[in-house]
Amino acid sequence: MATTDKNTAAADAPSERYARGLAVLQQIAGTERPAVLDSLADIAPDLARFTVEFGYGDIISRPGLTLPQRQLATISALAAMGNAAPQLRFHIDGALNIGISRREIVETFIHASVYAGFPAALNALTVAREAFAARKDSDDADAGPVAPATPSEPGTTRYERGLEALARIDGHAGEAVVASLQDIAPDLARYLIEFSFGDIYSRTGLDLKSRELASVAMCTVLGTAGPQLRVHIHGFLNVGGTEEETVEIITQMAGYGGFPAALNGIAAAREVFADRAEDNPEH
Amino acid sequence: MATTDKNTAAADAPSERYARGLAVLQQIAGTERPAVLDSLADIAPDLARFTVEFGYGDIISRPGLTLPQRQLATISALAAMGNAAPQLRFHIDGALNIGISRREIVETFIHASVYAGFPAALNALTVAREAFAARKDSDDADAGPVAPATPSEPGTTRYERGLEALARIDGHAGEAVVASLQDIAPDLARYLIEFSFGDIYSRTGLDLKSRELASVAMCTVLGTAGPQLRVHIHGFLNVGGTEEETVEIITQMAGYGGFPAALNGIAAAREVFADRAEDNPEH
Amino acid sequence: MATTDKNTAAADAPSERYARGLAVLQQIAGTERPAVLDSLADIAPDLARFTVEFGYGDIISRPGLTLPQRQLATISALAAMGNAAPQLRFHIDGALNIGISRREIVETFIHASVYAGFPAALNALTVAREAFAARKDSDDADAGPVAPATPSEPGTTRYERGLEALARIDGHAGEAVVASLQDIAPDLARYLIEFSFGDIYSRTGLDLKSRELASVAMCTVLGTAGPQLRVHIHGFLNVGGTEEETVEIITQMAGYGGFPAALNGIAAAREVFADRAEDNPEH
Repeated sequence: MATTDKNTAAADAPSERYARGLAVLQQIAGTERPAVLDSLADIAPDLARFTVEFGYGDIISRPGLTLPQRQLATISALAAMGNAAPQLRFHIDGALNIGISRREIVETFIHASVYAGFPAALNALTVAREAFAARKDSDDADAGPVAPATPSEPGTTRYERGLEALARIDGHAGEAVVASLQDIAPDLARYLIEFSFGDIYSRTGLDLKSRELASVAMCTVLGTAGPQLRVHIHGFLNVGGTEEETVEIITQMAGYGGFPAALNGIAAAREVFADRAEDNPEH
Repeated sequence: MATTDKNTAAADAPSERYARGLAVLQQIAGTERPAVLDSLADIAPDLARFTVEFGYGDIISRPGLTLPQRQLATISALAAMGNAAPQLRFHIDGALNIGISRREIVETFIHASVYAGFPAALNALTVAREAFAARKDSDDADAGPVAPATPSEPGTTRYERGLEALARIDGHAGEAVVASLQDIAPDLARYLIEFSFGDIYSRTGLDLKSRELASVAMCTVLGTAGPQLRVHIHGFLNVGGTEEETVEIITQMAGYGGFPAALNGIAAAREVFADRAEDNPEH
Repeated sequence: MATTDKNTAAADAPSERYARGLAVLQQIAGTERPAVLDSLADIAPDLARFTVEFGYGDIISRPGLTLPQRQLATISALAAMGNAAPQLRFHIDGALNIGISRREIVETFIHASVYAGFPAALNALTVAREAFAARKDSDDADAGPVAPATPSEPGTTRYERGLEALARIDGHAGEAVVASLQDIAPDLARYLIEFSFGDIYSRTGLDLKSRELASVAMCTVLGTAGPQLRVHIHGFLNVGGTEEETVEIITQMAGYGGFPAALNGIAAAREVFADRAEDNPEH
């Protein structure tokens, strides 16, 4: 393979990637001197450099997703992984620094209960509580108890609401999951409809596209949810996401879950894109 | 799909699910006012409600498994996940509150060394030690050093004992695993027989059905052990478990490892049930 | 199956396995009385015995890899798992006790950023920093800031350097990964080349064979990186590793990630070995 135009030595210059990465890292960290630079200085200064150059200069600086979308994907991934509390703390603060609300952060972690389980959701909220309490802006209008979401129309059951949401969001792919459970675990299908879609996806506080963005990020880094990742790539596309945005979310996961997670996520995306192209040949 | 009878608005009434869930949560927590309710009140009160309604009202209240079986599945899952220490602590206490013995808890975590590795077993035991030490009933007959299990008949090697246990518990599925390793890693096959079956499965302190219940729970939440989950669903059925119980264990895992883990576990169960139906057409 | 010669009651004698295991554990722990023995004495003394007999007597004592190679595989696995900080701390000390340098440990954790993500790398380095600071030999020549690796020839881009390294290390398997991304996520392919191979694999401080040993260990315990495990088994064999060593690394992972991780890793190795035998029938 020949070196392509965009891979010239000029574009490769460390100072450019470093400067670009540092600028976005400063924005997220809310400080001129992000702590990761100093905390690694004595032991692995190169990893600090890679974090800035690759993590922020190459990945987070990319077009295709807004910075709030990227930060939402990051906290989704770290919450689902469940083993990266220091980084989750940093990125909750980062989310607040770039304008994501406490309500959206809390909703993202409630959303995580579906994909990574209640322990992951509870532990992420513990970190969020610490982050919220430590901020000077803790008496914002945004602070204080989050009002319960009130999604339902009167007279609608959770099952009805969930079934409607499942059909609208995940379409055929979601309905196929439910159908496949009827012979063996119909109650699990019912919980999927009632809890995941009737309770969680129907909540206010985080728009549907953001919820599916979070689902794609979580399923990508978990690495154990291949069929569900496919369903939710469909879902993300069904609620307004684009194929380009899908690729951006998954590519970003290389930094949080590692390259294998991102590579396997892209393989799932390829299958979904091909399925949809086949179903809609005019596109 | 039409709303089925059991999904009527009446059955859906929040107060009924909440009341049912709170009752079982109180039993496990050993207190009228479980801490999870207050700890989430300021940040995500709806997640506290979902925990009670869905986690305890829908799932843990289900028939098909006893409460001690469910609590054993829970601590097995949390030990294997290895990233949920606060929840593991709560559920170790919960297990003791509903009559599971210290010995059974310790045995469950020793058992986890096979499926999730020694670090997971050691870290779960660290949490157990803290839980045991903090209890008022720490001078029970049950407390103090756990007597070593003494499984073997004199003159029997670990290999002989393990091979017999493997054949009895996992049957053809287990023997196929061993056979498949002979050409490439025969010593790994030997360790599987000697350590997993000769040392661990042959121990007293936790009956065989409970061990396979734990194995199914662990492999389901790990999400990375598909072939082994199949083997141990066979194993659970071979030592007295039923298909209904298998579905219950896996369904319960939605709350701990997330819905993807449960859905993928059910897919594995479907395959195993179909295999067995084919092998025993008269059933 | 009959009991084979090596599985006689004599070879099975606990004292022999225990003595052999204790000797190597003492060497790694750097003390006559490793803490794990006492820390489990009150709660699960049998697990302490299994750790010595199985973990160290059966596995770590095996021929086929040197003790430093085994210790490198262990810290690689624990760093990638990200949920075993106490064990990682113990084994970083163990690595230093048997002659692995601080530089090699730091490089291993920087290497982990590729497979398990930056949070895993950062959290492992936090543990390493604590371990390094607590040692009496902290003023060794080896201590202090690690010099940045300077891999590149002047005038070479990261892309060029990475592409050359990818071809040399992972061969056709690596190039196939890059090719498969061109239609959907070409920038992820570029990052794989530039960052993983141009930045990380090209670094000094850890030789190539050790890097691929670490990659195989990490991908095995993660359990979510099947395709990447296959690529890096090829890679390990391409840079001087043998099939026997590959089996040893993966077998060792039974103790850290559990038997399912090791069994699935062996299944991947079998496929790779068969592919290579087919491509090189004279071997």
